[in-house]
Amino acid sequence: MAGSSLGIIFQLTTWGESHGAALGVVVDGCPAGLHLNEGDIQTYLNRRKPGQTKISTPRKEADDVQILSGIFEGKTTGTPISMLVKNTSQHSGDYREIAGYYRPGHADYTFDQKYGFRDYRGGGRSSGRETIGRVAAGAVAAKVLSQFGIQLCAYTKSIGPITVSMENFDRKAILETPTAMPDRNASSLAEKYLADCMKDYDSAGGVIECVIDGVPAGLGDPVFEKLDANLAKAVMSIGAVKAVEIGDGTDVSLHHGSTNNDSFRIQDGRIVKASNHAGGILGGISDGSRIILRAHVKPTPSIFSPQQTVNQQGEEIEISIKGRHDPIIVPRAVVVVESMAAITILDALMVNASARIENLKKIYTT
Amino acid sequence: MAGSSLGIIFQLTTWGESHGAALGVVVDGCPAGLHLNEGDIQTYLNRRKPGQTKISTPRKEADDVQILSGIFEGKTTGTPISMLVKNTSQHSGDYREIAGYYRPGHADYTFDQKYGFRDYRGGGRSSGRETIGRVAAGAVAAKVLSQFGIQLCAYTKSIGPITVSMENFDRKAILETPTAMPDRNASSLAEKYLADCMKDYDSAGGVIECVIDGVPAGLGDPVFEKLDANLAKAVMSIGAVKAVEIGDGTDVSLHHGSTNNDSFRIQDGRIVKASNHAGGILGGISDGSRIILRAHVKPTPSIFSPQQTVNQQGEEIEISIKGRHDPIIVPRAVVVVESMAAITILDALMVNASARIENLKKIYTT
Amino acid sequence: MAGSSLGIIFQLTTWGESHGAALGVVVDGCPAGLHLNEGDIQTYLNRRKPGQTKISTPRKEADDVQILSGIFEGKTTGTPISMLVKNTSQHSGDYREIAGYYRPGHADYTFDQKYGFRDYRGGGRSSGRETIGRVAAGAVAAKVLSQFGIQLCAYTKSIGPITVSMENFDRKAILETPTAMPDRNASSLAEKYLADCMKDYDSAGGVIECVIDGVPAGLGDPVFEKLDANLAKAVMSIGAVKAVEIGDGTDVSLHHGSTNNDSFRIQDGRIVKASNHAGGILGGISDGSRIILRAHVKPTPSIFSPQQTVNQQGEEIEISIKGRHDPIIVPRAVVVVESMAAITILDALMVNASARIENLKKIYTT
Amino acid sequence: MAGSSLGIIFQLTTWGESHGAALGVVVDGCPAGLHLNEGDIQTYLNRRKPGQTKISTPRKEADDVQILSGIFEGKTTGTPISMLVKNTSQHSGDYREIAGYYRPGHADYTFDQKYGFRDYRGGGRSSGRETIGRVAAGAVAAKVLSQFGIQLCAYTKSIGPITVSMENFDRKAILETPTAMPDRNASSLAEKYLADCMKDYDSAGGVIECVIDGVPAGLGDPVFEKLDANLAKAVMSIGAVKAVEIGDGTDVSLHHGSTNNDSFRIQDGRIVKASNHAGGILGGISDGSRIILRAHVKPTPSIFSPQQTVNQQGEEIEISIKGRHDPIIVPRAVVVVESMAAITILDALMVNASARIENLKKIYTT
Repeated sequence: MAGSSLGIIFQLTTWGESHGAALGVVVDGCPAGLHLNEGDIQTYLNRRKPGQTKISTPRKEADDVQILSGIFEGKTTGTPISMLVKNTSQHSGDYREIAGYYRPGHADYTFDQKYGFRDYRGGGRSSGRETIGRVAAGAVAAKVLSQFGIQLCAYTKSIGPITVSMENFDRKAILETPTAMPDRNASSLAEKYLADCMKDYDSAGGVIECVIDGVPAGLGDPVFEKLDANLAKAVMSIGAVKAVEIGDGTDVSLHHGSTNNDSFRIQDGRIVKASNHAGGILGGISDGSRIILRAHVKPTPSIFSPQQTVNQQGEEIEISIKGRHDPIIVPRAVVVVESMAAITILDALMVNASARIENLKKIYTT
Repeated sequence: MAGSSLGIIFQLTTWGESHGAALGVVVDGCPAGLHLNEGDIQTYLNRRKPGQTKISTPRKEADDVQILSGIFEGKTTGTPISMLVKNTSQHSGDYREIAGYYRPGHADYTFDQKYGFRDYRGGGRSSGRETIGRVAAGAVAAKVLSQFGIQLCAYTKSIGPITVSMENFDRKAILETPTAMPDRNASSLAEKYLADCMKDYDSAGGVIECVIDGVPAGLGDPVFEKLDANLAKAVMSIGAVKAVEIGDGTDVSLHHGSTNNDSFRIQDGRIVKASNHAGGILGGISDGSRIILRAHVKPTPSIFSPQQTVNQQGEEIEISIKGRHDPIIVPRAVVVVESMAAITILDALMVNASARIENLKKIYTT
Repeated sequence: MAGSSLGIIFQLTTWGESHGAALGVVVDGCPAGLHLNEGDIQTYLNRRKPGQTKISTPRKEADDVQILSGIFEGKTTGTPISMLVKNTSQHSGDYREIAGYYRPGHADYTFDQKYGFRDYRGGGRSSGRETIGRVAAGAVAAKVLSQFGIQLCAYTKSIGPITVSMENFDRKAILETPTAMPDRNASSLAEKYLADCMKDYDSAGGVIECVIDGVPAGLGDPVFEKLDANLAKAVMSIGAVKAVEIGDGTDVSLHHGSTNNDSFRIQDGRIVKASNHAGGILGGISDGSRIILRAHVKPTPSIFSPQQTVNQQGEEIEISIKGRHDPIIVPRAVVVVESMAAITILDALMVNASARIENLKKIYTT
Repeated sequence: MAGSSLGIIFQLTTWGESHGAALGVVVDGCPAGLHLNEGDIQTYLNRRKPGQTKISTPRKEADDVQILSGIFEGKTTGTPISMLVKNTSQHSGDYREIAGYYRPGHADYTFDQKYGFRDYRGGGRSSGRETIGRVAAGAVAAKVLSQFGIQLCAYTKSIGPITVSMENFDRKAILETPTAMPDRNASSLAEKYLADCMKDYDSAGGVIECVIDGVPAGLGDPVFEKLDANLAKAVMSIGAVKAVEIGDGTDVSLHHGSTNNDSFRIQDGRIVKASNHAGGILGGISDGSRIILRAHVKPTPSIFSPQQTVNQQGEEIEISIKGRHDPIIVPRAVVVVESMAAITILDALMVNASARIENLKKIYTT
């Protein structure tokens, strides 16, 4: 594929630049018969909307979604769902200056090298606004998954050195704190940390965690379409993510088999695991327990303090980035991680439907 | 796809079970005109062969590769290269016992849930022997990449708490130490650590790092076929890998933009980066500097100490695994990580060949 | 895939229903650096626009295209090109009646069987308006191909029993006759034939031929991505096409090897074929001579004369279709066939760019 | 993809050259739980085996299949099924001569143009022996389809001017006549026609028809993965096929809507069509009636009479092909067409399993 499509059966294709007319996504392969309306999508998009808190860019965008196809009488028809969000708050003038040089930590240089030139306005296709299409598709996927009792929950796990305490876990806080942390106390500390960053004209990074409950055992296809492999791809494809962990993740290298293995046992007549170091995936296939993943997100590369770089004429220069930028990407990226996870789980669920002769007989015998 | 194929243009399809007649791979899309013979493949396969050191399973397998198609007069023809390795040292009897229960940390339970039953002999398709196909394909990819000055080097970064010192970096040690560490001193310590694990009937985990030099800027396709996203998928698809990092990886969350951004500067008339926190990839596209990735590998799940589990009758039982198992997966997986990286980089390089009109004109104007 | 995407590197994804808000296409993988504007697309779309002649539906649609992404400073950037056409002349009321029964020759019944219900307005996704996305993408592909001296020309070969004479071939007539025939005399006869059909409340079929000049030898990938196989799929995927021929097509079964084989000979120092029964493709790979294909198109299924069918209640009924319908699909489908051929040829050309090590060296050695 | 793989869920990858060590196929995505053994495959392969009749090449090949993976305790496990046939009767010496020139009607020239050189022995990858992999995969697909009451039947429809009479249809004759015709009388006439061709050192073409019964309504995905589009691709990808028809095929252009439309009616309480001009597919989706397709096959290009061509030195020469060649491709290609149809139908059936929310609920609700 050419890079803007993802998925085997449930397939999304995103398009659009930061300062073009609009951005959007085509969701193809969505099963027919799902009640879906623009409100379902907007709820998700609002979670990544800028301009809502002190730690987010003051740029205001309505980000109102329109559904242009694939829905009839309130239900998905099985045909592609085209969704579009218009760009309304572009200050392209702000970017005239950056046209001629390469911002450190951005994709300016690599786009130029790849394509010979680039749409420099607001990062063009490499802008964070590109994730609008992902989130709109994620909202659709999450709604399908909810029909099968599958629930996703992503949140900020840490910002700089401030980590949430899972004992304080408060799901409502995710949507109510500016940090998207599920721990109001940690959130306050993180806000103070970010305020200090901003004072220093600097930015911060953090960690996003996503947990998924209710996933039936059996999703994921050995050996390359493993569920963890596809989650890793989906999440690593989000700009600024530099590491992905499943379950205990990087900690496994310090453990022994005796402490890392999850024993099986019987509970209420069903097979369950006594622990979940594996994060719900064994051999690339979901094992019926909670799926757990984490994304490590780098600090916003657009900072106001001076930086060394070069321009297109090959001269070394000092720059100072202007404009409207988030001091941290994490809080607004939480819903993006959740969306990418939803998309991946749903595709695996649909592909798995035909894994056995006896599954197919349930559908084709009437 | 059905899960056993990977790649868009340079595409591999692996097949085979641990205790079947053979395992193999079909490499399709390899460019024509590459000198290639079985020795090129065997060199790579030998790096993952068991029975060579004290810290590897005593199971001996010749793992001799045969090339069955795609080569004529010593060169690749552009048609699929089919490669096969016969299984010769299977003790299927060892596995009769495990047919009836679920080994913790293995894919026994999830395969049963997905497919309704499983080939229980040696893990069947979820065995580490499945990686033979990956490594054979990786050897082909690495040879193609070498034509373009691209060199890969993977090694063991750490085993349990023992980490190599990059100041001691000794490339020859990778192939000469039983740990595949590039630091003979760390290797000795790690061997001692593993000897202790084995004494305790336990196993250990570790970290594999892979660096890739000579990659031209421009490889990788936004937004889903990003180079880092595809590397993450390729590496996470290796059994036992639970986390993947690019560049500074998990450390980025503790940094600021001012310390994480890599400045650009001019060196010998060319644009280079003054540092490489990004690990050679910006916006999902290679930036011309060294690509760096790490895989975190869990401890071998097959341990000899007793474990709790359940059997297919739904009874809780205690088991004690027998047979021949590595106390650590890491050293033999080093070449697997290198192979998956080679496959991914080559596919990106081939896809990128047609990214610009002016590239196509170099080929189609005579 | 989910069915609305086509292509490996040059990939299109279409969306939209006849009576939804809009229809469109995302073209991904278009090489960067092509001058492109809405006029380039509109020229193609105008060739399939209704309401222009007596033998086309009187329904008038502006079908004005908007490009929403992927173009910057007048050139393609390498990122997805999203194009959209608004629906403006829907009379959905006309279709209320057909909601409850199955029109013969249409996809009403099969959509209901597949998805459980359907968007019955104007055929929904199975409407001929779906081809707008194909033609917009085809216009892009054709412009890329023109950079390499590749020219496509499709036309009506026959309508009912009236076949054009290739001796009279007049390329300008294709755009100037209502039949899209390259023979004004045949066109007059065909118009008369169609007038008779309309008088009988009936419809007619015909044949579309497409010739493609300037295609370099070497495009197409054995054994499943053969150029003829992909052309067959691309053209057969157009609604109403029931047969596809390459070169001499169905005639080959009556020939002998001695008459069907094309001899090679030398002309101006280059290898050429003395004849072209093969239609420019040998072993699934372009041979450098003219590519020739034909599509056989069934009569418009919407006819005004009474027909027998059943309704959703399972009752046999007689219906009489109303509304605005073309008496023949062929003339407006000519540009659709040309577009599908352009898309297929371009994708093969891009994929083929990395078929040889020496091709890649032209790009990656600087 | 790179060309040797086909299918979305049920996916085959073929490999092998005429004169290499072996040819084979990897079938991935086959649903688990199907009883399958080598006998199931051999029955199909025997139908394309050479050396069995006077009108087939006297070259004898055992073509014994080995299954190397994917089967355990007599059933498919859901993992890739690797199948291999050794080449045993190669006379590579016969081909030394043709190394230096281009045989008319063959892929010699196009392979050279694409890849820079070619495996000239017996046509290499473009040999008819390549179809062994297709037929082995087709045997698997057909056995899966039989679990759902879907039956395929392909046969020779015509050879040169001799066409079978459907009134004489005798299914057993397909396997018993050397022509694979279902009409013993026509077969005798065709044998005589072929004897005359052979006497003239010439070859003949013909038509293969395939009918498929029991296909449920609903298979095929608009707009590019239409069932007829994929059948066209699958069948056109067979070497020597130059045209593909669905249902009435090329005849549709001479019909009117009133005669080409199939009325719906009620029979035994179910909706059926009163006729089947459409060949079982409406809007690209199966309609529950018999699927009908035809492939037009060119005469064997290898003929013994003298032909004009050029050699690699660019000289015009006269050649006279030697070796062992069939005077007609059709009878041995019948099972190849049937196989490609089976593969296509099964993939569509598996993809369609997740087309509706309610289908998925049948599988995921326990």
